[in-house]
Amino acid sequence: MPPPVLDFWFDFASTYSYPAAMRIGPLAAQAGVEVRFRPFLLGPIFKAQGWTTSPFNLYPEKGRHMWRDLERLCAELDLPFRRPDPFPQNSLLAARVGIAALDHGWGEDFCRALFRAEFSNGTRIDHAAAIYNVLADLDIDPAPVIAAAQSDAIKTRLRAQTGEAQRIGLFGAPSFVTADGELFWGNDRLEQALRWASKRR
Amino acid sequence: MPPPVLDFWFDFASTYSYPAAMRIGPLAAQAGVEVRFRPFLLGPIFKAQGWTTSPFNLYPEKGRHMWRDLERLCAELDLPFRRPDPFPQNSLLAARVGIAALDHGWGEDFCRALFRAEFSNGTRIDHAAAIYNVLADLDIDPAPVIAAAQSDAIKTRLRAQTGEAQRIGLFGAPSFVTADGELFWGNDRLEQALRWASKRR
Repeated sequence: MPPPVLDFWFDFASTYSYPAAMRIGPLAAQAGVEVRFRPFLLGPIFKAQGWTTSPFNLYPEKGRHMWRDLERLCAELDLPFRRPDPFPQNSLLAARVGIAALDHGWGEDFCRALFRAEFSNGTRIDHAAAIYNVLADLDIDPAPVIAAAQSDAIKTRLRAQTGEAQRIGLFGAPSFVTADGELFWGNDRLEQALRWASKRR
Repeated sequence: MPPPVLDFWFDFASTYSYPAAMRIGPLAAQAGVEVRFRPFLLGPIFKAQGWTTSPFNLYPEKGRHMWRDLERLCAELDLPFRRPDPFPQNSLLAARVGIAALDHGWGEDFCRALFRAEFSNGTRIDHAAAIYNVLADLDIDPAPVIAAAQSDAIKTRLRAQTGEAQRIGLFGAPSFVTADGELFWGNDRLEQALRWASKRR
């Protein structure tokens, strides 16, 4: 029987998507669950809720707690952490490169490396040069990947993926969705989502 | 040395305050931490953020996930769960009775019993009769407690407690605050808050 599948929906600009992306691989392997990385854009979904930026910027107390919480969380996980500036980063190009990268075996490595660059080195992910360097550091030839990411085909796929996210009721990231349509929102629901997926194989 | 203290801030109308209230006693005892139950009102804090009702009502996708999440959570914890109607309940009287009750040794039992009535029996906590019954079931004479709850002294104390919540930056419930001012928001941060409190005794 094929292993159960869990969709991992994330936005490269989303703070809690960083620890989720770094944790999901080994936890899913332990649970015998296959993960599909699905980058999408939160921007259009926030806009539909009337928000012009991250709710962490719109609600300062909420934002203050999130930064401190993320700092504590990363310390417990031994993940380096640095607050991106500006926040949120524009993740359009990153998401397109993510979709192009995930057509290859090294796609998830790229996603993790980009999250690490953004949240531990302070790299601005809206610069093509930064993404270029992340690819090069993985010994991937950057130019064809970035060219593919800017093709109409990839732009259309990202729009479709974001449309699907909206259609299935995602409102934040990270989100985890099982094959039977169960939605779990937030890095702290990752273990529960894996349990759910593996029980229903 | 006195045990470290953790403040447990909650609103009787808040959904995730229910599992937190049911879990905190045994977990705090294990961690050697003393808990102070601190009922407050989220309403004025939401209003200051421009919200006229719970964000779970304002953002339907978020609300849909919350109800399902709470249902899954309570199932895992073996807590009965029923969705309160209407939501949120008006928790003004409940909070006043909570403050009056917590002057007595049975105060925390009352808080748990009221949460249970609301979230497992479907009791409307904005009715004095319902609160009267919860007290009577605990073998407490209800009339003097409800009279105390409606005194100016208790009204003033609830206003002061809600003011303090706002001043220290609370934006949701449940929240946990350690003696050294560390804020943890959400039922899923309870264990981490207890670890923090007990490490800094």
